[in-house]
Amino acid sequence: MSKVEPIFVNGSWVQSSSIGTFHAMNPEKRERLPEEYPISSWNDVELALQVAMDTFEELCHLPSSIVADFLEAFAAGIESERDSLVEIAHRETALAKTPRLNDVELPRTFNQLRAAAAAARCGSWSMPTIDTKANLRSCYQGIGPVAVFGPNNFPFAFGSVSGGDFAAAIAAGNPVIGKANSSHPGTTKRFMEIAEKAIRDTGAPKGLVQLIYRLDHADGERLVSDHRIGATGYTGARSAGLVLKAAADRAGKPIYLELSSINPVVILPGALEERVASIVDDYLNSGLAGTGQMCTNPGLVLLVDCPASRDFVRAIVHRYESAPSGTLLSEGVQRSLEQGIQILMSCGAELLTGGVPADPHRCSVRNTILQTTGSLFLANPDKMQTEVFGNAALFVLCANVDEIEQSIRMLEGNLTGCLYSSTTGSEDDVVARLSPCLAQKVGRLLNDKMPTGVAVSPAMNHGGPYPATGHPGFTAVGIPPAMLRFGKLTCYDHVRSHRLPTVLQDIPPSSTTWRKIDGVWKQGPLN
Amino acid sequence: MSKVEPIFVNGSWVQSSSIGTFHAMNPEKRERLPEEYPISSWNDVELALQVAMDTFEELCHLPSSIVADFLEAFAAGIESERDSLVEIAHRETALAKTPRLNDVELPRTFNQLRAAAAAARCGSWSMPTIDTKANLRSCYQGIGPVAVFGPNNFPFAFGSVSGGDFAAAIAAGNPVIGKANSSHPGTTKRFMEIAEKAIRDTGAPKGLVQLIYRLDHADGERLVSDHRIGATGYTGARSAGLVLKAAADRAGKPIYLELSSINPVVILPGALEERVASIVDDYLNSGLAGTGQMCTNPGLVLLVDCPASRDFVRAIVHRYESAPSGTLLSEGVQRSLEQGIQILMSCGAELLTGGVPADPHRCSVRNTILQTTGSLFLANPDKMQTEVFGNAALFVLCANVDEIEQSIRMLEGNLTGCLYSSTTGSEDDVVARLSPCLAQKVGRLLNDKMPTGVAVSPAMNHGGPYPATGHPGFTAVGIPPAMLRFGKLTCYDHVRSHRLPTVLQDIPPSSTTWRKIDGVWKQGPLN
Repeated sequence: MSKVEPIFVNGSWVQSSSIGTFHAMNPEKRERLPEEYPISSWNDVELALQVAMDTFEELCHLPSSIVADFLEAFAAGIESERDSLVEIAHRETALAKTPRLNDVELPRTFNQLRAAAAAARCGSWSMPTIDTKANLRSCYQGIGPVAVFGPNNFPFAFGSVSGGDFAAAIAAGNPVIGKANSSHPGTTKRFMEIAEKAIRDTGAPKGLVQLIYRLDHADGERLVSDHRIGATGYTGARSAGLVLKAAADRAGKPIYLELSSINPVVILPGALEERVASIVDDYLNSGLAGTGQMCTNPGLVLLVDCPASRDFVRAIVHRYESAPSGTLLSEGVQRSLEQGIQILMSCGAELLTGGVPADPHRCSVRNTILQTTGSLFLANPDKMQTEVFGNAALFVLCANVDEIEQSIRMLEGNLTGCLYSSTTGSEDDVVARLSPCLAQKVGRLLNDKMPTGVAVSPAMNHGGPYPATGHPGFTAVGIPPAMLRFGKLTCYDHVRSHRLPTVLQDIPPSSTTWRKIDGVWKQGPLN
Repeated sequence: MSKVEPIFVNGSWVQSSSIGTFHAMNPEKRERLPEEYPISSWNDVELALQVAMDTFEELCHLPSSIVADFLEAFAAGIESERDSLVEIAHRETALAKTPRLNDVELPRTFNQLRAAAAAARCGSWSMPTIDTKANLRSCYQGIGPVAVFGPNNFPFAFGSVSGGDFAAAIAAGNPVIGKANSSHPGTTKRFMEIAEKAIRDTGAPKGLVQLIYRLDHADGERLVSDHRIGATGYTGARSAGLVLKAAADRAGKPIYLELSSINPVVILPGALEERVASIVDDYLNSGLAGTGQMCTNPGLVLLVDCPASRDFVRAIVHRYESAPSGTLLSEGVQRSLEQGIQILMSCGAELLTGGVPADPHRCSVRNTILQTTGSLFLANPDKMQTEVFGNAALFVLCANVDEIEQSIRMLEGNLTGCLYSSTTGSEDDVVARLSPCLAQKVGRLLNDKMPTGVAVSPAMNHGGPYPATGHPGFTAVGIPPAMLRFGKLTCYDHVRSHRLPTVLQDIPPSSTTWRKIDGVWKQGPLN
């Protein structure tokens, strides 16, 4: 009997036709975990793709209540298995069991799945648009099998068979092939087991969700560009993401990427003079959340060089030194964080605190603050924007607001950008000048607020210009908008009424379905 | 004094710093037209890009009524200059002055511009979404300077400074750099003159519209991937489009392409038995519209081999032979049409009629019908899908419905797909089988109707899976949805209310503005 964990393909746990194996690690102990997971060969992927394609065609003939039922059963299963999920995820990621995993990420995960189920059921997500005079009816529909590559930092809420991309893809009517993140295969396996039961219990197509653990790079490229793939969702490191993007682009296959972001925060002197203590607290809570391993971690702080700003930096350094240095997700994260710090220092950034391992027995780096000047930042803007993923940040003391503006103009695309200013309105002119520049560079602009804590709302944008993501018009968080990434627009032109998708028929599938009929958004039947 | 026509950059007609010149041709006479147009060097593009970027920043501070005013004045200008536009365009393209240019394409063009103006004014296009509880507000906003490469076949309605991409990009708040199609530079120049007057009359930023005529390929790649570019719209030949796509993709810049489509039409025997004469008329009108030079030309007809289908093909051949063979847009179009016919014949397609020049004094090919069998089509599906842009089509006689289904499964992405069947419902089972396959391959599915005549409607989808376009989620026709291609999604998170874009403020810019507030689409103020 092989000790290698099976993959889940075509409704069954089967041995992988693997080209190697790997183990996850407990970052708290730097200890290899006992379970052995397969690195799939192309044979596994080929089978999964064929099953996914057949499943997609099956889904085209089924009501969307099928995927809604599945998503709800899956959410309930996750809720009832929360203890085991939290246990496994903590062991693989060292993320705090509570509040993080149990009280924040897990509820977010099942709530997202339930929101996706509701969206699938009512159909408003698909933007049904009807022109009665021209007899044209259009909506978004499933795009085809979706490959989901999940990141290391959100084992639940962005997991490849549990997270936001997964929920959005399934709810839009697509089967998913999940590629587990190699740092938490056991967590992903547990989700797959719960999903398997939900599929069985609700009678959903058995190929709706499939799971492989790892691939070599060439097979990853082949997967995202395969003719059967509808689209890909990828969240993770920029280097690997760009390789997949190039392959998908060449094949004309949509790929939605979340690659990197340093999330600039501009804090004007008036804000500090007015309420420095609360801004220090804000920064500490945001900057060290999840040991800084958040997509929206505030990694770059732009300040005007003045006594208030210098006091602020000193206060942050002091707090960073007294706060415990958390455990990082993996040895790879620690290595890349240490390298990032070195790159910033090589450009002249000064290390104010941290920069060395916190505890050799676990994956860790001491809470780190670097400081530089606006002119040094502007002298080497590319390297100075190196993402230091983890509990580290770069503070830039600019000579004046002009230098802040110039620095913003040199920024790459980011997920978020924050602006703190005096509440008296005395800095409104400066804000009016900086806001449009900053807004062009980011997907979400915040005022007087740190960027972590991404609300799951239809009004959220978790996205942004390249290279934060691959396209500035899509959000990865927020049901229903995130579903549009996995939809294909189809217009039905004089199609006989009984052949129309239910969402475009005269009577909509639900009394809550919003449709744009002759320019007017309305609920209820056509007439 | 140079005889070379000037380009329009930064609000003025200026001499190009050109690397060569070119002339357009009158395809009716195979005669070079006297005007000499510049091939721009990178210097021209660099200047246009800088002006466009400055203009974009200017637009961020202006109300959207500015672009709406401009678009309306431009539409009025076009309407009043219609005679000269029709004259010039006819000379450069040989498209019929009436009804085509004067009565169809020109009204469509100014109506599109007016619809875009209305959309810019009311702001519903930007999908304003407000979550009052989480204090999140999001909408689409301008993406940045847009480069528009227009096609040869619609000198007005898809023109680089007059057409659908242009209108959508401007209305979404972006300046446009138009790259004229080399086959009708004079028409494009005339539009630019009318736009110049509209800019002046409405006080719009002088860099809102700029025009260059031609570029070498390397500079085209550089333009679409420049850091200042927001997005590109390209309609034209697949080969050139894919080169631009690769460059834009590498830079992470959105590019919307319309590349090619053979627009499969499935006609089931029951439809022919019932109403062959009207289907023959339908096909003739659609297949020869614009001498077949339409994006949605029905270039591939799939039939079941039976007496009714054979009679149908004979009737089409007869009508094609007696119909006049129109003039093609250029020598290049004629050459590529002749080559396409040769490729199809090299795969075994039989030439039933046409295939040779209609008149050596003008650009033309005799109306052409080729025929093949389903098995030959399936033996060489890639080559058999060669786009023969012009007045030619391939009819495939399949042994049975299975072979039609297999042929559909081998199709590349297309703009449209049509299904004709008996009105008695006797073929509904077959339609139910073929429809989902066909719908996956096309952006617009039609019943009992030919694909040409693309209505400008919010419910239209003029798009489709690759390689028909670059992304299956976007339409190039239909205001407002086409505008989303040129929008960047931005979320405002706790942004102070007076700093919000007008469309997200408590009081919307217009009483007609639709906004999704806490899940409910509504017009009017927040409360």
